[in-house]
Amino acid sequence: MHHLKPFQLSNRFSDSIKAVGSAFAKKNRDLISLAYGFPAPETFPISALVQASATALQEEGTSALQYTGGPGRHYLPTWVTERAKLRQIEATPEQVLITNGSMHAIELAIRTLTSEGDQVWIEAPSFFGAVRMIELAGVSIREFPVDQHGLDVDLIEQALLQAINQQKPLPKVLYIIPNYHNPTGVTLSLERRKRLAELAYRYNFFIVEDDAYVDLSFDQAYLPAVYKFAPERTIYVSTFSKIIAPGVRLGWAIGNQEVIQYMGISKSDGATNVLSQEIVANFLQNLDLDQHLGQITTLYQQRCQTMIQAINFHFGSEVSYTIPSGGFFIWLTFPKSIDTKQLQLACLEQGVSFLAGEDFYYQAREHNHVRLCFTFSNEALIKQAIKIIADVYHERRHHLSLLEEVR
Amino acid sequence: MHHLKPFQLSNRFSDSIKAVGSAFAKKNRDLISLAYGFPAPETFPISALVQASATALQEEGTSALQYTGGPGRHYLPTWVTERAKLRQIEATPEQVLITNGSMHAIELAIRTLTSEGDQVWIEAPSFFGAVRMIELAGVSIREFPVDQHGLDVDLIEQALLQAINQQKPLPKVLYIIPNYHNPTGVTLSLERRKRLAELAYRYNFFIVEDDAYVDLSFDQAYLPAVYKFAPERTIYVSTFSKIIAPGVRLGWAIGNQEVIQYMGISKSDGATNVLSQEIVANFLQNLDLDQHLGQITTLYQQRCQTMIQAINFHFGSEVSYTIPSGGFFIWLTFPKSIDTKQLQLACLEQGVSFLAGEDFYYQAREHNHVRLCFTFSNEALIKQAIKIIADVYHERRHHLSLLEEVR
Repeated sequence: MHHLKPFQLSNRFSDSIKAVGSAFAKKNRDLISLAYGFPAPETFPISALVQASATALQEEGTSALQYTGGPGRHYLPTWVTERAKLRQIEATPEQVLITNGSMHAIELAIRTLTSEGDQVWIEAPSFFGAVRMIELAGVSIREFPVDQHGLDVDLIEQALLQAINQQKPLPKVLYIIPNYHNPTGVTLSLERRKRLAELAYRYNFFIVEDDAYVDLSFDQAYLPAVYKFAPERTIYVSTFSKIIAPGVRLGWAIGNQEVIQYMGISKSDGATNVLSQEIVANFLQNLDLDQHLGQITTLYQQRCQTMIQAINFHFGSEVSYTIPSGGFFIWLTFPKSIDTKQLQLACLEQGVSFLAGEDFYYQAREHNHVRLCFTFSNEALIKQAIKIIADVYHERRHHLSLLEEVR
Repeated sequence: MHHLKPFQLSNRFSDSIKAVGSAFAKKNRDLISLAYGFPAPETFPISALVQASATALQEEGTSALQYTGGPGRHYLPTWVTERAKLRQIEATPEQVLITNGSMHAIELAIRTLTSEGDQVWIEAPSFFGAVRMIELAGVSIREFPVDQHGLDVDLIEQALLQAINQQKPLPKVLYIIPNYHNPTGVTLSLERRKRLAELAYRYNFFIVEDDAYVDLSFDQAYLPAVYKFAPERTIYVSTFSKIIAPGVRLGWAIGNQEVIQYMGISKSDGATNVLSQEIVANFLQNLDLDQHLGQITTLYQQRCQTMIQAINFHFGSEVSYTIPSGGFFIWLTFPKSIDTKQLQLACLEQGVSFLAGEDFYYQAREHNHVRLCFTFSNEALIKQAIKIIADVYHERRHHLSLLEEVR
């Protein structure tokens, strides 16, 4: 047997990336889960997908199973551009790339728009999956806070001016989640959308606009996408995960055609799963999507209201939050002294899971928030879970304070 | 309207990457194609997949459509380890990562094992898709020639010794295709496999062993994988594309558990398409795979023989090649003076497509080879295509010489 020398893995992996990996390895199926951003499985259109799969394979099998794919692969970009008109996005199918979900689209956009060492600016807090992909691209990350109207654009503008004045590098990309933000649930105001677009042109950076939750509006009210105001400096990203099911693993990017072409060259999976594309294309052609979305959003709004009522009842003024107008999440803010990582562990022992706020920060780790997902568990479980969290909190709140140590 | 400033895309894109992208944009459906490595569509098990899709969705839909996936996602790594025993690979399911095809697995392995600027050594010629992924990882690439017994291991050893003597960096990764090599069709000898494994331990680099074609042996004779001789320094990669269909878009990697975990963290598509995994798992559980593979390889062997007979008949001693014992490809070598890019263009006009050899080199572009795929077109079309190529060649051979210019 050989003496095994130590092998140095890539310097692409930071300590924070390691931590995310190990945290997600722990799972327990008996919990009431408010943790992950899972859609309600009872909304999955199973019988329609059975039909769509059979049709896709029987009618287009020889092409849908080949590398190049069948007609569904060509239908999806057209569907995407039609749908995008609701967000006031005008684009051609050549400006669309179909990807393995929206995180894949974000990864490709970041790798196409940046070189190693470039600046990417993000929201704080933000979606850890996207942040991991940004970090793995070897770029330098800077965070900017989110308030109840979304990303604080004043601070972005100040930082841009300061960078100019100090001759420091400007960002190449700003990554944002404008609608029903993950994790805070807030929506970026129209005025801020326009200002961000203006800044992208003036300071020559791209906005990667992650619009995964756009179709989950409780009141069917849609602001125009940031893309509308900066079509040449925005890569718009969305997904079928929230409107059909995550298992079909398909998302898309819309953008400048040259950038989209380079994103396509960067893909390691050929034309993206063409069987899945054929199934989804068949499904979309035989479905009243608005009716389907109406059912989903009605269910999610009820669950959201139930969660808010339970929070108000059990926590009163002890916590604050912004009422979401769509999406998956409520972001609860506790008093500054509270360490929600400790609360999370104590609640896990009582059979309830959620994510502690600090997992959603890159460096500016705030310790007094939690993210609650209201879409996955039913109303009875939501009520039960919030009561358990509140009981744990009230019982132990004096032991949940942040210790005076560097974490 | 804003004045649009020029935006500098990533420095990850080289000129050669740009060229591949544009070349592949040209397509013509009426050609007899010997160009791409496509399986025969008549081998696609469509009705079995219709059944597998219905079962997967009806019995496991709520989990198979969720992010986490259903039982099929857990079945596949076990299937992979069982199958790998045929190549004398011993591994546990925890050492398996399911990916979006083998090129995705190669990308993840390279990104996990290297930092920007590291050395990756490859075969010349090699599969351009994998080479593109290696290049996009920002590493430094060096090529080593392939002969009729596979990669020339003597030259690898000399280069390693030279690097040590000159205190130059050693490779972190060597990327190889040991069985029915793409594009040359040759198989790496047992003795060279053992020596490569020995070198990997001694000089502490990883072998990325791309075994996409392993199951397509004409005589059901299998050499042990390189992995067998260097399990701690090999990432073994394969795919369902050649044995089921490319459209299911699933492949895998087997390796050291820590490396596999980091490859998993690097993925931007969650658990890989879990619906496709559920379908493939169902399919595999209800299929006699050996019978299915027997049908495929019998067909491919016939087509290969037909192609070889046609080559011998029409070209005689004008070309040379190694008779493949499996896989998809024959690599024809013309006299040194012949520029096959010109031959390719002339044949395209006559309705036959193939790939010119120079597309399979990174820098050491040899101009006198072509890659012919014998699996996609039927025997009649193969005969017709080889005759057309020969007619074009004999008619124009004095005009096909390489011009005395730098290309």
